[in-house]
Parts: sequence; C-alpha cells; structure tokens
Amino acid sequence: MKTIKASIIGFGSIGQGVARVLLMKKDYLKKEGLDIKVIAVTDSKGAMIDENGLDLEKCLEIKSEKGTIAEEKMTGLEVIRQIEHDLVIEVTPTDVITGGAGLLNMQAAFETKKDVVTSNKGPLTLKFKELNELAEQNGRLFRYEATVGGAMPIINLTKEVMAGNEIESIKGIFNGTCNYILTRMLEEKAAYSEILTEAVDLGIAETDPTYDVEGIDTAGKVVILANAVFGMNKTINDVDRTGITQITYEALEMSERNGKTIKLIGEVRKNGELTVSPRLIPIGHPLSVSGTLNVASVQTDLAGEITVTGKGAGSIETASSILSDIISIYKEN
Amino acid sequence: MKTIKASIIGFGSIGQGVARVLLMKKDYLKKEGLDIKVIAVTDSKGAMIDENGLDLEKCLEIKSEKGTIAEEKMTGLEVIRQIEHDLVIEVTPTDVITGGAGLLNMQAAFETKKDVVTSNKGPLTLKFKELNELAEQNGRLFRYEATVGGAMPIINLTKEVMAGNEIESIKGIFNGTCNYILTRMLEEKAAYSEILTEAVDLGIAETDPTYDVEGIDTAGKVVILANAVFGMNKTINDVDRTGITQITYEALEMSERNGKTIKLIGEVRKNGELTVSPRLIPIGHPLSVSGTLNVASVQTDLAGEITVTGKGAGSIETASSILSDIISIYKEN
Repeated sequence: MKTIKASIIGFGSIGQGVARVLLMKKDYLKKEGLDIKVIAVTDSKGAMIDENGLDLEKCLEIKSEKGTIAEEKMTGLEVIRQIEHDLVIEVTPTDVITGGAGLLNMQAAFETKKDVVTSNKGPLTLKFKELNELAEQNGRLFRYEATVGGAMPIINLTKEVMAGNEIESIKGIFNGTCNYILTRMLEEKAAYSEILTEAVDLGIAETDPTYDVEGIDTAGKVVILANAVFGMNKTINDVDRTGITQITYEALEMSERNGKTIKLIGEVRKNGELTVSPRLIPIGHPLSVSGTLNVASVQTDLAGEITVTGKGAGSIETASSILSDIISIYKEN
Repeated sequence: MKTIKASIIGFGSIGQGVARVLLMKKDYLKKEGLDIKVIAVTDSKGAMIDENGLDLEKCLEIKSEKGTIAEEKMTGLEVIRQIEHDLVIEVTPTDVITGGAGLLNMQAAFETKKDVVTSNKGPLTLKFKELNELAEQNGRLFRYEATVGGAMPIINLTKEVMAGNEIESIKGIFNGTCNYILTRMLEEKAAYSEILTEAVDLGIAETDPTYDVEGIDTAGKVVILANAVFGMNKTINDVDRTGITQITYEALEMSERNGKTIKLIGEVRKNGELTVSPRLIPIGHPLSVSGTLNVASVQTDLAGEITVTGKGAGSIETASSILSDIISIYKEN
C-alpha cells in the first residue's frame, strides 16, 4: 500500500466533488494499492488540517452547515508551503486574466516538491510552459485532464491511447453553456437573449455570461490543448475568437433546413492556428451533439478522425477526471 | 533501442495496412526506442522469411504484382512454431464459428512465448478466457484493440484512461455496413434491399451480407467487450440478437418525424445481459452518427456517459490500432 498525503486547495463545487469521489472510491483505491490521505482542505476563509488524515465526510458536513471548513487562518498557499505532503489537488476558481491564486499555488507546490492535479484552467492558459518546466526541474508530475471538457478524456486519450498517430488538429465544443443556448434556440424557436435568460435561471449560464458566450472559456481550453497535445507555447491572446452573441434563430433554422447545425467550435491545428468561432456542422456528424455536452474531434494521420463526447461540467464528473489523473500518477511510479 | 522481431500472419488488406504503417512510422518508432523488425510475412499460399528483417516495401510490391508473397511453402502456424521471434501480428480473416486459423495461431504463439497483437475477432469471441490464461501462463501479452471498431479506441479508453470509474454498460454502433444502410435508406427514401445492393456495389457490404445485417459481427464485438472490459466469460451464443433486415424506410421516416433515428445497437451491461438490436436514438445524441462510422458509449458511475466515435474499418485505420497496441506493449515493459 502506497500512502499519498494530499491537500484539496479550494472547497467549492469541484473540491467537494473530489472529497465525495475519494470517499466513494476508498475501497477501489485500496485494492489498487493506493491510500489517498487528505491532510488539509482549504477554502477562501481558511483551512482544516490533520496530518493523520481528515475525515472527509465530516469536512463535507461542516462545509454544508457553516459554509466554510475554516478552522485555522491559513491560506491554501500557506498550507502548500508549510505542511509536508505529496500531492496538491488545486481546484480554486479559474482566473484567465491573472492566473489568480491557482498560479501561485501551483508554483509553490512544485517548488516544495509536490505533484499537482488540477481542474483550474487559468494558470495553464497563461503559464503552461513555465509550470511544466518548474514541475520537471523539481522532478514532480503535473496532470490537468479536468481543465478541458470536465469528464471528457481528451488529453489522456490523445497522449496515451492514440500512440503512434500524428495529431493534425483537434476541434470541438468545449463550452456546455454555449451548446445549451444554441440547442435550445432552435428547439424553442427563440431569440438568443430569451434562451440566455433561461440558461441563467437554470444556473447553466452565469449572471455575467461574457466569459462563456464570447468564447473566452473555449479559447482557454484551445490554448491548453495546443500546449499539452501539440507542445506549443500559446496563450489566450493567440486565439482568433468570435462568440455566439450574433447568432440568430433564423440562422439556426436556415442551417437546419440544409441538414446542418451551428456550433461554437474551438480548434487547434498543427500549423499553430488557434480559432474559436461559430461553424456549420452537418447533422449526424459526431460533432453535432446537443445540450450541455462537450465533444472533441481529433484528426490523425492513421486513425482518421476520432471523436470523444462527455459531460463538460458537473462536480462529480470533473472530479472523476481528477481521480483518473491521480491514479495515473501513482500507479506509474 | 529495443529490437522486436515480429511476424505478420495474414497479408490481406489489414496485414498490408500494418506493413504500410510500420514503414510510415519507422522514424517515429526509432525515436520512441523501438525497432520493429518483421522477420516473416505469411499469406494463404506461403511465407516470405528473412531473419535479419524483411524489406516491407518489397513485400508490398511483390504482393501487389503476384497476388502472394509466398516464397516458401510454410504456413503461418509453422512460422510461429519454428522461427524465433517476439511478436505475432495475427491478422488472418475472421471466422466466428470455428475461430479458424487465427485460434491455432494465437495458441501456438503463446505456447512458444510470443506476444500477440490482433484484429481478428473470431478467436476472441470463442475462446477469450482460454487465450488470456494461456498468455498469462506463458508470461506473454495479448492486445486486441483493433478487434472492436477498427480505429475507435474503446478498449484502451475504458481500461486505461477512465481508471477509477466503474463501467455500468457499453453500447454502440459496431458495424459500419449496417449504419451505412440505415443512413442511406433515409437519405434516399429507399427500401432496405435497394440500399443493400448499393452497398454491395460499393464494396461496403459483402456479396453475402448475412454476417453484418443479421448482427453477427456486432454480437462478436459485444462479446469481446464483455470479456475484455467487464471480465466476463461470454461467447456469441450468449447474445440476444436481432438484425436490421426487417427495418423499413417508413419506420425510419416515422422515427425521424419524432426527432429520432434507428440504429443497430450492441450493448453489454454489467449484469451480464448482452444484446444486439435496432433501437431508437434521439437525433443529436452522441450515438446518432451517420454513414459507416462506429461509435461506443460508456456509462460510468462518476464520469457519466462518455462516447467515442471513429472509423470502424479501413486497413490503415485498423493498422493504427494495432500500432498503438504494439507501442503500449513494448513501451510499458
């Protein structure tokens, strides 16, 4: 049995999902020879720490009762720097402009010789190369499947399963909110603004939906794929980006009459072109999936086009990608 | 550099695809530290052998000029038994009734301490457990991604990338011929028999299409998934099977008016139920792909539903799965 001491930095929806998944899979992990012992959980107000391992059930209860697990006035960064452990599960909120706390957390983790598994896109869209170099210099591992498409396993699929293939391009729907809006506009014969209101009411879109509907979130994921799969060194400023705010119901209907649908597609090509824009996709094509689903289509030299679809969001779904990453790190070592 | 001595047993469309892919990827493999040296190629008429490594370019030329690479009167089985090498690439034609030459070839390979990578479903639908046990007893590896869905990476996806998830069911379209017929019937408003004739003319269906249209091919793939992913011990007789021969254009059209499409779906559930039957799939659902594509949808406890789509046939596409398997065997050892 290998004991891994871990911290969960950020205890919002995804952090709590990670705690739930670790509880659900305790026996499975033990069978695989892994004992993941969470020694600290932090949220924006502070930390709960037990170097012998926290009771995650209790952490979830306290979070739900009090709104915070803060018992001690330590930040995530202080926990990473001051408490000895092996793995930082970095699930603080994404900030694609500055990288936010996540960037400092990841840097500190590598500098203090800890592995990092994350769902936090911000630091990866800004400083992908630097973070990977820092991980390597310190002999630590860095996994981020959950940053692109939640449960949809696009990064590990292309890097592991499709070995031997040269990847020519990856394109897909990487934002469930936009896909939901475009799907519902056609179903309801309704205007963009009307469906956006519905999506906000349902909690599918944020009150300020700019980040999703202007394609910024999609652009972040395109950047991560460019860097992770193609070995590029891109940032979000390298993406040629158009959102979905100008799409009308009439345009969707006219496309449908021609056997096509309009989707917000992010694409990275091996020549270095990164784009986010609404595109016509034939109905019946693997990319023409509806609702909040995410999908990625990988063009390869041998296998042709391989497409993978999955839930792009959801705390348990995203936590499942984090779990797969954790298993892949500690089973291969 | 690790040198792997390999034989290609069967030199039809897939065997030639393997030769082409090994030629295309020679430099890539060298960079990965692998020198795959093909020391024998066999077809139904005989073998070509060079223990220092055959020139695959020349093998392909001779096959195309003479219709056979037979220089010596040795069968595949004799090559496997008598010539020292490490890896048997078993790509003889599939026979789901007896297992055909493939079954004997695989048994002989393991008994003489060789690894096996194959695209040949027959032996796996009949003797999956026995073959795996034989491989294990002899300390050899057995990989068969190409047996299900050609280039679509369903087996390695579920076994490697989705670690930590419990698989509840896998369902999908595993036969491109049936999918082509159902897609075209609706496009052309045509009867089953009419489109079948078209498919035979285009080489998409065999002159005797029973194996495809009665769902036997799909059933074979369902059996392999049951055994490989769920650890069951099933054969083709355990599958409750209905083909597509009774589907009318009118049924397809009525489904379409209700926003659905009819697809031949193979499914394995963790309770041991294996089925092949035509089913209604909502348009826009990831399983509703058109043409000759294959698709598999994996229901998991954490990640929800993950779907993967790819080309189910084609010599280079199938060979690409064989190549990925070869890389996975020799890189992990």
